[in-house]
Amino acid sequence: VRKEDIHSSNTETQRPPGESFLKNSWYAAAWAHEIEQKPFPTVLLNEPVVLFRASDGTPVALQDRCPHRRVPLSAGKIVDDAIQCPYHGMRFNGQGRCIFAPAQERIPSAAHIRSYPVVERHTLIWIWMGDPALANDGLIPTEVVSTLDDPDWRHKGQRRYLKCSYRLLIDNLTDMLHLAYVHTSTIGNPAIEKSAGNMKLDRGDNFVRVERWMIDQAPPPGFVSAGGFTGNIDRWHVSNFVPPSYFRLDLGAAPAGTGAPQGKIDPATAMIRHNINCITPETETTCHYFWAESNRSWRRDPTITERIYAIVLEAFEEDTEILELQQRTINFDPSAPELHLSVDAPGIQVRKILKHRIDEELAASSSQLQASSD
Amino acid sequence: VRKEDIHSSNTETQRPPGESFLKNSWYAAAWAHEIEQKPFPTVLLNEPVVLFRASDGTPVALQDRCPHRRVPLSAGKIVDDAIQCPYHGMRFNGQGRCIFAPAQERIPSAAHIRSYPVVERHTLIWIWMGDPALANDGLIPTEVVSTLDDPDWRHKGQRRYLKCSYRLLIDNLTDMLHLAYVHTSTIGNPAIEKSAGNMKLDRGDNFVRVERWMIDQAPPPGFVSAGGFTGNIDRWHVSNFVPPSYFRLDLGAAPAGTGAPQGKIDPATAMIRHNINCITPETETTCHYFWAESNRSWRRDPTITERIYAIVLEAFEEDTEILELQQRTINFDPSAPELHLSVDAPGIQVRKILKHRIDEELAASSSQLQASSD
Amino acid sequence: VRKEDIHSSNTETQRPPGESFLKNSWYAAAWAHEIEQKPFPTVLLNEPVVLFRASDGTPVALQDRCPHRRVPLSAGKIVDDAIQCPYHGMRFNGQGRCIFAPAQERIPSAAHIRSYPVVERHTLIWIWMGDPALANDGLIPTEVVSTLDDPDWRHKGQRRYLKCSYRLLIDNLTDMLHLAYVHTSTIGNPAIEKSAGNMKLDRGDNFVRVERWMIDQAPPPGFVSAGGFTGNIDRWHVSNFVPPSYFRLDLGAAPAGTGAPQGKIDPATAMIRHNINCITPETETTCHYFWAESNRSWRRDPTITERIYAIVLEAFEEDTEILELQQRTINFDPSAPELHLSVDAPGIQVRKILKHRIDEELAASSSQLQASSD
Repeated sequence: VRKEDIHSSNTETQRPPGESFLKNSWYAAAWAHEIEQKPFPTVLLNEPVVLFRASDGTPVALQDRCPHRRVPLSAGKIVDDAIQCPYHGMRFNGQGRCIFAPAQERIPSAAHIRSYPVVERHTLIWIWMGDPALANDGLIPTEVVSTLDDPDWRHKGQRRYLKCSYRLLIDNLTDMLHLAYVHTSTIGNPAIEKSAGNMKLDRGDNFVRVERWMIDQAPPPGFVSAGGFTGNIDRWHVSNFVPPSYFRLDLGAAPAGTGAPQGKIDPATAMIRHNINCITPETETTCHYFWAESNRSWRRDPTITERIYAIVLEAFEEDTEILELQQRTINFDPSAPELHLSVDAPGIQVRKILKHRIDEELAASSSQLQASSD
Repeated sequence: VRKEDIHSSNTETQRPPGESFLKNSWYAAAWAHEIEQKPFPTVLLNEPVVLFRASDGTPVALQDRCPHRRVPLSAGKIVDDAIQCPYHGMRFNGQGRCIFAPAQERIPSAAHIRSYPVVERHTLIWIWMGDPALANDGLIPTEVVSTLDDPDWRHKGQRRYLKCSYRLLIDNLTDMLHLAYVHTSTIGNPAIEKSAGNMKLDRGDNFVRVERWMIDQAPPPGFVSAGGFTGNIDRWHVSNFVPPSYFRLDLGAAPAGTGAPQGKIDPATAMIRHNINCITPETETTCHYFWAESNRSWRRDPTITERIYAIVLEAFEEDTEILELQQRTINFDPSAPELHLSVDAPGIQVRKILKHRIDEELAASSSQLQASSD
Repeated sequence: VRKEDIHSSNTETQRPPGESFLKNSWYAAAWAHEIEQKPFPTVLLNEPVVLFRASDGTPVALQDRCPHRRVPLSAGKIVDDAIQCPYHGMRFNGQGRCIFAPAQERIPSAAHIRSYPVVERHTLIWIWMGDPALANDGLIPTEVVSTLDDPDWRHKGQRRYLKCSYRLLIDNLTDMLHLAYVHTSTIGNPAIEKSAGNMKLDRGDNFVRVERWMIDQAPPPGFVSAGGFTGNIDRWHVSNFVPPSYFRLDLGAAPAGTGAPQGKIDPATAMIRHNINCITPETETTCHYFWAESNRSWRRDPTITERIYAIVLEAFEEDTEILELQQRTINFDPSAPELHLSVDAPGIQVRKILKHRIDEELAASSSQLQASSD
């Protein structure tokens, strides 16, 4: 029996609730433009969270539950950079400290709520869902999202809501082969499958990189319509995974034979893209999905950003349909095994890194509990 | 740490299902006008119940499940003061005794269903959900609802259905402070908060009374539009709680300085109201809410009943929105603690009485079980 | 205490999930005309199943879950008599064996899915949900369904979906008395109840037969409109149950006094029908219902098939309403007991056979497990 034939036991889909997520991590909480000086409610990693901006524009993220009577603060309003509970007017500042308690002078010492470290960077609002002491903004995956506010690039993005585990979307983004089956009218064609085995896989402790080239192939439909390719192309597809759930896909194509595989890429004729993906679990079986298409080809064609976005959006709608059906089928029997194929090698590396990080976190948290009870 | 700072552990919201309710009590099952000579299905304290009237007008309440094949009797019809099962025609009289079994002469001796003690009084149908032997109609909370059919008073009421625990609505009705935050366009204004600490709290084994006065204050919007007050008012708000879930709020206002706090209330210029509330749990997280606005000011202004009702209805719709959001937020983490404020003193007394009554009932029922197994 | 008074404890409605169904049995999976050369998804006995036809018309039933990434195969397409997964193109033939794995030459040896024995017979597609080694097509209940493709008969049928346990529908079809209560505007009238006790009950290991005659009675409304009876009729109602969930009801009427009870039935004046019923559980509380009205009176009245169907459809819609209410009421307290009446004798025999068959199957399966672990 070869390795790819082994049925995995899907222990990941059966982790107890609350152990499915890596907590000590930055997650995309919202697009920066979504957050204003008014409450924005969301649920992240099973926790209700409210986001808003202070008057100086600083983003704030707080537990969306008043400690008094457990009403969502997001149903209230922002007063003097604090959020006021809609029910009895308790106010909490950006640090989660109560600064006003109604009808009494003294602020109860226990009146505080959880404040989440939050950073606005590269058009996104990032939130740290774990131990605040570990929140280091150097851990924000800049390498994944930096072209979102790079003046040499233009992008268009979207927030999606998927009724599937964030893990299914991670599998989907690691995998290239499905383009040949799910996306034949947009970004896929038979060239994908032909080259599926030709991949260069690099793995580190905190990344998986997969490089794939399709040389001298017919362009898929979306590359004709958005990229304007008429003849054969050299196409590249480089997937960069950073745990827990970020992906930068370096995508592009150049007229065949113009030297792209050797690094000679002419922006005047090539299509050079980053497909940027940040996934944030909502619950064990639902997730928020922030994605954008970023490109360096907008100078020669001002409409290309919009046109690439439209094609990729169509592809992601195809994926959404499959992924939600997949979750529904898994729900019938969550412990049913999976079979791996040769092309799943990158996905298995990605799963291993995520599993390792979560296991590490759980172990640290249980040894901490042990220490504090000794 | 002061007492109001102590986080409660919310043991009440975590009682096992079936132990959340006081069973030995009268509950409002319906408005009297809702029950006719046809089946009226409802669910009370997790039990399916069917109500109807006999031909002489007597209300009847029976278990809404045929003992034969467990079909709801309420889908059938009333025949000769008995309810006939829609499936096979078994008939049960008002005592729940089977008086007809199809296609056989003998009535099976085991063919009976639960009949609930039921009383029509003060425009409501009252049902006793516990041990029928303890059903004493002297326990109906006449003091709460008597003005509903007092000729000196006029009222208008409503049935509401709330997707929240009856306990959240009890908290809401005990609490006055939220008027200053939730109801600023109707029955609340800043005067509420200013006087929030000025309360006279009385507690007995089976009541909580909270008297609050707001002296020489501007009237809130609804008091201007419905009460016709132009100048400042002396406003009173007396909350009378009777367990498990009845409230009579004695509400009113008189022109400031005319002696209302000293008991000199002139019906010709004052607005004198009872806000009457009976809450009946449907399940642990849903409830039926029967409320009415009753007033003694209708003689000087025949339209006042309708106008006060409209304002209070608007306020209760504001409450409904908050309470359903509150339940939803509690559901994320039912064991999350609560923090109490000084103004919560009446609410805490109300919770203690309810807890004591339920604990007492559970203890009595378990000692009864003990005795019968000895 | 007589036998019919004994409250049953409803152990059947409380079986653990997965033990509610007889697995080693043929079930109706679909009407034959529903299955084409494209995937038809369904859920049978809690298992997702996909049906389709090979190019030669042979029906196929496979587990509707790709073993690779657990996507429903039914969202894919049929290619060369195999089903292709929509996600990565794995293909499975009618035996469930993988015949194509993408981007690799070797087919993984573990790549197979469950293939269910399936037979097309008498206008239905039959599926065997248990051990394939026991699937003997001689066990298809030909005696129940054979008139569906008998040239002497004409029929019209329907697929229904009921939000109730298949057991409730079995009870309903065994029982004739409810016609006098539920179906008074169509197929029932007081004659039903008068004769309810006159039944001849035969029981074998694998059938229950109940014969009932109503002699010289007024015809119910549907017999007048569809059968054209003007005077009194002799009506017969013979229910044939075959486990787990098939019923052929031999139904008919002839002008009173023309000798029908003695076997003298003249097709020129009599209405001779089979009401054919195959129930397939979807989950513990939902079921698929395949039924048809088949008759031998179409030669004298070409419109009778359509007219009888319309009347019986109306009756089954009345049943559906009751059965779904019944399930909802049972859900409030699944362990509530039932009371049996004299007329339930056939239903109790039917339940006993089904219980015996399921117990037998569970015992065999646990002794097999025992043997294999020894």
